Amino acid sequence: MKLDVWSGLFLRDIFCEFLGTVLFLFIGPLSWDSITDEPLPTLDSSLALSLTLASVCLGEVHLNPVVTLALVAGLRVSPWRAVLLVGSQLLGALSACALLLGIMPTALKSNLGVNEVRLNRNTEVAPGVYLYQALLVEMAVTFQLVLCVQAATHPKSAFSSMGPAVIGLSVTLGHLVAIGFTGCGMNPARSFGPAVLTMNFHNHWVYWVGPCAGSLLAWLLHDLVLHPRWSCLGDWVTECKETLLKDLSKQSRGPENHMEA
Amino acid sequence: MKLDVWSGLFLRDIFCEFLGTVLFLFIGPLSWDSITDEPLPTLDSSLALSLTLASVCLGEVHLNPVVTLALVAGLRVSPWRAVLLVGSQLLGALSACALLLGIMPTALKSNLGVNEVRLNRNTEVAPGVYLYQALLVEMAVTFQLVLCVQAATHPKSAFSSMGPAVIGLSVTLGHLVAIGFTGCGMNPARSFGPAVLTMNFHNHWVYWVGPCAGSLLAWLLHDLVLHPRWSCLGDWVTECKETLLKDLSKQSRGPENHMEA
Amino acid sequence: MKLDVWSGLFLRDIFCEFLGTVLFLFIGPLSWDSITDEPLPTLDSSLALSLTLASVCLGEVHLNPVVTLALVAGLRVSPWRAVLLVGSQLLGALSACALLLGIMPTALKSNLGVNEVRLNRNTEVAPGVYLYQALLVEMAVTFQLVLCVQAATHPKSAFSSMGPAVIGLSVTLGHLVAIGFTGCGMNPARSFGPAVLTMNFHNHWVYWVGPCAGSLLAWLLHDLVLHPRWSCLGDWVTECKETLLKDLSKQSRGPENHMEA
Amino acid sequence: MKLDVWSGLFLRDIFCEFLGTVLFLFIGPLSWDSITDEPLPTLDSSLALSLTLASVCLGEVHLNPVVTLALVAGLRVSPWRAVLLVGSQLLGALSACALLLGIMPTALKSNLGVNEVRLNRNTEVAPGVYLYQALLVEMAVTFQLVLCVQAATHPKSAFSSMGPAVIGLSVTLGHLVAIGFTGCGMNPARSFGPAVLTMNFHNHWVYWVGPCAGSLLAWLLHDLVLHPRWSCLGDWVTECKETLLKDLSKQSRGPENHMEA
Repeated sequence: MKLDVWSGLFLRDIFCEFLGTVLFLFIGPLSWDSITDEPLPTLDSSLALSLTLASVCLGEVHLNPVVTLALVAGLRVSPWRAVLLVGSQLLGALSACALLLGIMPTALKSNLGVNEVRLNRNTEVAPGVYLYQALLVEMAVTFQLVLCVQAATHPKSAFSSMGPAVIGLSVTLGHLVAIGFTGCGMNPARSFGPAVLTMNFHNHWVYWVGPCAGSLLAWLLHDLVLHPRWSCLGDWVTECKETLLKDLSKQSRGPENHMEA
Repeated sequence: MKLDVWSGLFLRDIFCEFLGTVLFLFIGPLSWDSITDEPLPTLDSSLALSLTLASVCLGEVHLNPVVTLALVAGLRVSPWRAVLLVGSQLLGALSACALLLGIMPTALKSNLGVNEVRLNRNTEVAPGVYLYQALLVEMAVTFQLVLCVQAATHPKSAFSSMGPAVIGLSVTLGHLVAIGFTGCGMNPARSFGPAVLTMNFHNHWVYWVGPCAGSLLAWLLHDLVLHPRWSCLGDWVTECKETLLKDLSKQSRGPENHMEA
Repeated sequence: MKLDVWSGLFLRDIFCEFLGTVLFLFIGPLSWDSITDEPLPTLDSSLALSLTLASVCLGEVHLNPVVTLALVAGLRVSPWRAVLLVGSQLLGALSACALLLGIMPTALKSNLGVNEVRLNRNTEVAPGVYLYQALLVEMAVTFQLVLCVQAATHPKSAFSSMGPAVIGLSVTLGHLVAIGFTGCGMNPARSFGPAVLTMNFHNHWVYWVGPCAGSLLAWLLHDLVLHPRWSCLGDWVTECKETLLKDLSKQSRGPENHMEA
Repeated sequence: MKLDVWSGLFLRDIFCEFLGTVLFLFIGPLSWDSITDEPLPTLDSSLALSLTLASVCLGEVHLNPVVTLALVAGLRVSPWRAVLLVGSQLLGALSACALLLGIMPTALKSNLGVNEVRLNRNTEVAPGVYLYQALLVEMAVTFQLVLCVQAATHPKSAFSSMGPAVIGLSVTLGHLVAIGFTGCGMNPARSFGPAVLTMNFHNHWVYWVGPCAGSLLAWLLHDLVLHPRWSCLGDWVTECKETLLKDLSKQSRGPENHMEA
């Protein structure tokens, strides 16, 4: 019974999440100009494009730990499932960074470490930016991203068929806004990969705390105010406890694989 | 009975209008380049993007006093309701500007007042541009914006599911056109926020009169010519009076909260 | 009976065609940078945007004499109607150019005649470009434009709701391609306006012959090959004659106002 | 009986494939700046645009040998049909290049062979890029392109009406990524045309092997993992053999023209 967790469909979801993150974070930052030996100033477009296309190709993937977090908070994904999804996202991010290091031209690698700069892009806040500003900006851009994801994937949304496009635009907006402050994290997996490969965890917590706070705020706004599923936080806590208990008892009998609608 | 005005749904609409304006006018103008310590030349894209995404996330919001004006003129929103909507738009614009002042890096704030320049963007017409030109251009860009809003939200429109995208493109066009003349107002709330925070009301009336005139012109064209709901202005005046009287009598009995379809 | 030609619906169509051309050719080329006193290098984007938005706002408008030509050739619009439509397009283009001359800042007007350069954009082929090249390029870009218009407005098209977007993209492509050769005509009305106001008809025939040839080629491909309505040109000639005769006899009894589906 | 292969519908498909490739590869790379006498840096946009528009205009066309390859591997197109399709693609690419050589201004042709550079764009990997890197990058970008094509044309896809747009975005992403490494092949037909006209086949195999490998990988992922039609490769081999045998026996009786759904 326990082995059902590893049944085909669930394994496929985990694999899609892994593959999607690799595609998103490998193909996105690969753009490079052979004439000037420098990364093209189009990182933002190609990241937004690769995220949009990964969503189109792979269907219902999160590709971002804080999107998974908002879905867990909304009781749409069970916590056990979420841990595996986030794990595969982080693993995907690491693989993508390793691939990136392997495939970039040696000229670029030796030349002033441009490659590392590219990788570092998400590991340091800009000089002259206080941590509270970095934190607030990360929160703001992730807030709008998670709000867009929830709005576009809401079953009654008029924009469901435009979902990936909406999310791509949201990522583009986030980059336009946050690139000067923090290099634009908005996705802890994206910041985690380069941080591990360069072993640079300086201020790395900003890229986890900011997005998580923004994501939870967006979830609160969406599920309590815009499309109220609970009238107050108390109701949510009650339902939350019930679901967890039911989940635990089921887990002892056999896992439920597809909570997600 | 009187308290129905403050019932849940209406309060939610007012709150959405406030929140949408904050998102639109806070996240939009935040783009900043840490390398050159200057605002990115992408203000227009990020404003159009943040408006589009706010529309996607929050649904039926106006986010612009002259859009509300056109809906009032078309008897689609009651004047009482409109006053509260415009009020929350102006309050949202003020909050967004205050947040913007708070979060921009100190380097930028002290350095030649770039931040104020950003805020001022909508408070002064360009040198060498006569007021009549500024007024006409503001009128023209708002005319096309309000015409697009009406075309995209018309119930029989083939583009209803693309509404936010159409409006975003319309804002982009407006910026391309009007940026050299007036910095592109097109939205009195957007011009009002910086004007108050910098206490600079020089020629501020242009950013109210131009857009209002353009909006009323677009409404006339749409409701009398393109999709005629009244055969002439006389019919409109008659219906207008009736609606107002009915509204007033209702108001004494108890308000009607949702005139909007 | 004769007066039916001037009935409400037909007058509205003529008016929409006029208004649409004014919007397209007035708002599109207005973009101007107050800092450098030069036209923004975004003429192409703003022209494509204003065309797209005019199509969204006004519905079924041609805004281009060669689009009307292709519809006449396909027996979808009667020749009599087409003459009035093209007339209102040319009048609209003249009005737009006059408005443009009136509203551009005096600084720009006196300063090296930038304004006239803007207006001239479509009146001269580039130096070093032979007329046969200009003609072929005009033909090629108009070919793809009219093919796109026909594909997007075909009743069985999967892209009908994206029509204006497709046409906007097609105009963008045309500008990317033809800007270096001919300044990109693709629309005789657009070239006619500046030519009249500056009284510069040098090589002006290229901007009529090229687009007309491209348009007829696109119509042949669409109606005889891609979605065959006639098996050969002979069949078309037969149907053409019949329709014209029927039309003439009807004209003597009273005109048919809406041949267009 | 044998002559059915040359029946109307099949001939039309072959012709569309030829015409589409000519449009895509002639209009796309034509962009040129008459002021600086250099190709515009917008080759990528115009290629993506012309591909998107060719798909909108001509309907179900491949325009790329490796897309045909993936459809053959998925038993959606018979090998005999595929040979003719690929042949017409290669012929179309050659015609487009010849047209391009004919129409570009003589100034450009003599001036440092910019024209040839344009044509050469896909015949040489960048200096400092090892062949294994070029091969891997070509594989990666073609992988995402073919995955997008399969996702967008899947009958149950939510994005079918956005198909050409998705494919255009995918081509744009591919150019952003691969332009520095290999000039972005992604389409052997596109690389084949210039290679033949300049008789430069240096490393030309990279532009065939990379895309083919990426395409087959994308097919494997799509048909065995994402939307499993066969549980393992063995099943595929069995069905493959059966289909080929059936096809051969039919061929001796009379060909089946439209395997494609």
